[in-house]
Amino acid sequence: MSQTSGSRQVALGEGTADRSIPAYLPLRADLIGETPYGAPQLDLPVCLNVNENPYPLSDRVVDAIAESVRRVGQELNRYPDREHTRLRQAFCDYLDQESQTRLVPQQLWAANGSNEIMLQLFQAFGGPGRTALGADPTYSMYPEYARDTFTGWELVARRADFTIDLEKTLAAIESLGPSMVLLASPNNPSGTMLPMEELETILKACQGVQVAGAPEGVHPVVVVDEAYIEFRDPGLPSAVSLIEDHPNLAVSRTMSKAFAFAGARVGYVAASAGIIDALRIVRMPCHLSAVTQAAALAALGHADEQLSQVGRLRRTRQETADWLRGQTYRGKPLEVADSQSNFLLFGGHFENRQWIFEELCKRGVLIRVVGPQCWLRVCMGTDEEMDAFRQALAEVLAQA
Amino acid sequence: MSQTSGSRQVALGEGTADRSIPAYLPLRADLIGETPYGAPQLDLPVCLNVNENPYPLSDRVVDAIAESVRRVGQELNRYPDREHTRLRQAFCDYLDQESQTRLVPQQLWAANGSNEIMLQLFQAFGGPGRTALGADPTYSMYPEYARDTFTGWELVARRADFTIDLEKTLAAIESLGPSMVLLASPNNPSGTMLPMEELETILKACQGVQVAGAPEGVHPVVVVDEAYIEFRDPGLPSAVSLIEDHPNLAVSRTMSKAFAFAGARVGYVAASAGIIDALRIVRMPCHLSAVTQAAALAALGHADEQLSQVGRLRRTRQETADWLRGQTYRGKPLEVADSQSNFLLFGGHFENRQWIFEELCKRGVLIRVVGPQCWLRVCMGTDEEMDAFRQALAEVLAQA
Repeated sequence: MSQTSGSRQVALGEGTADRSIPAYLPLRADLIGETPYGAPQLDLPVCLNVNENPYPLSDRVVDAIAESVRRVGQELNRYPDREHTRLRQAFCDYLDQESQTRLVPQQLWAANGSNEIMLQLFQAFGGPGRTALGADPTYSMYPEYARDTFTGWELVARRADFTIDLEKTLAAIESLGPSMVLLASPNNPSGTMLPMEELETILKACQGVQVAGAPEGVHPVVVVDEAYIEFRDPGLPSAVSLIEDHPNLAVSRTMSKAFAFAGARVGYVAASAGIIDALRIVRMPCHLSAVTQAAALAALGHADEQLSQVGRLRRTRQETADWLRGQTYRGKPLEVADSQSNFLLFGGHFENRQWIFEELCKRGVLIRVVGPQCWLRVCMGTDEEMDAFRQALAEVLAQA
Repeated sequence: MSQTSGSRQVALGEGTADRSIPAYLPLRADLIGETPYGAPQLDLPVCLNVNENPYPLSDRVVDAIAESVRRVGQELNRYPDREHTRLRQAFCDYLDQESQTRLVPQQLWAANGSNEIMLQLFQAFGGPGRTALGADPTYSMYPEYARDTFTGWELVARRADFTIDLEKTLAAIESLGPSMVLLASPNNPSGTMLPMEELETILKACQGVQVAGAPEGVHPVVVVDEAYIEFRDPGLPSAVSLIEDHPNLAVSRTMSKAFAFAGARVGYVAASAGIIDALRIVRMPCHLSAVTQAAALAALGHADEQLSQVGRLRRTRQETADWLRGQTYRGKPLEVADSQSNFLLFGGHFENRQWIFEELCKRGVLIRVVGPQCWLRVCMGTDEEMDAFRQALAEVLAQA
């Protein structure tokens, strides 16, 4: 353990002065100097930085949620159903409709955001001496789940177009023997979809791979993070369709994105009953409140309405990608990663992306500095917000 | 790593058939054979098993909660305030009133139940190679937080009357150099209060103790779990009054018990800003939903009403303790631990407590088999529920 004397700097979120954690506190040595995860929270008119659905909930859905909470209100003195059985059934019904896959509640589990789902997966299948493998660039929270569970974190580089390098990925799985393989599809921050046949190849390969340090016959769990899956083009399958045939597959999802429910913090995972039972061992008892269960049930009861803007956001993505490809930075056209999500990774040769980000901020538009150098990420907003983004970016590029 | 071949048995909650986790899944070796934590959920008329407040919320408070959720409803497409600043201020105001201690939001932090608070404390201050120290018997979730964070878990025995053995506790702190000392007050399952002067002695001793493996000058964090503190007799102080002078002290609390809000899953911790900042590093981003924040704010706005039954439950505790002390088991009077909570640990010489528990179940009364052998725990219900408990127990004792 190494530790500096004196006090340790911790950069805090916006709106809080930077403070330091005193050296007399037994903060874990590997956390010293770490900062709380999260996008900068700046109060700007156009926020296209955290991949939210920009459309507020309708009065009808809000009423349904408030009524659903009212119905459980009297009994809030009692603990909630820690198995959240009704909600698990509702997610099964949703997946039946959304991905034409019939699951039972024993194959479904929900938590406070897919963050908590992922943490529980790492708690069950990670730990000291074990390794999780991802494909770089990918979601920047993954190394935090690994850190929080003392799991090793390794990355295979994606190809230049952000697709999975299947050959290198298979070789890394073979040589590392990871206990978990983590693949986001669509990937954040690139929006890249993982083709089903590649996922099946990886799943099949994992059946022949030994988890390092584990007894014979223990194989990696493959986690597909489908946080943005509803934004894919119609007709593309979801990995949930493979669950029945692959007991080592877990598919994580969330209501935060397409479902316009980020504020309610509801994530879920579809997997074999064995994987779900493993999560039940590590979950905090009664982790999902009766209020959250009631709110999620009400929103799922209005799924069509909650998802009604997804088609529009898909069109916005296409239009914005087309527009971005027509722009130039220092004489060279912008690159745009093929995206099946509600955001676009663009640029590709921004030599000073921080300057572009700050110039956009000055014009009231907040996007995200994330992912590989020379790229920036913007999420799809309302038509007015995208107008503001295009106007601001055109100005900034003209000055670059 | 040891692992049995074939499949591993996992005893599941009530209402779910026992299943096994297949051996090909890379479940952490130390989780093999573990079961999900939680009291048996039996559908009986009188449930006195999980220390809930038996009184349902009033229509007025339910309306306030539903309206508060409605107000944030439209914006649920956006992520919540991850710093939950308004709620932290509301808890500060509550503590000012409840414990005459003025704190600022930087000294306050909330999460999904005090379970999550405790997990975050272990995530920040525990970890491999570190030890947390408790006082046996105590809350049965503590070893699970330790297990989930790979922290060692050691216990010092309490005295026969369940008070802290100060001498042995100080000696164990000195010899182990734990990174965390965990003391519940009132203690679960005994209801025992930790006197302030003893806590101060422990805090002072910890200032002179080195955390094992850490650099010089790193001292243990003392966590006081005050889940049941509002049930203490009027006039007794809370450990939050010591926070200003003890930067290594964290006091965990919950709205689940006296506050009659178990279903909403809201815990909080009061501590130095340094400790809170450490929790901010390990928390999941946006761990506390906008719905939970809204519901908790509404309930805190009706604190007097939510806490209105606390005095009555205190009287029920006194009456029930008196009654129990008048009962005999196989010719010997029952023992009852002195309790400052809403439950009583009783018996002391039940040679077959499981039989008593089951006989009570047959009579529609669910209590809890927990804590030291030969004791049982019952929590305070409504007058009708306590009548049913007394009648059932009298019958069972007569047959014992």
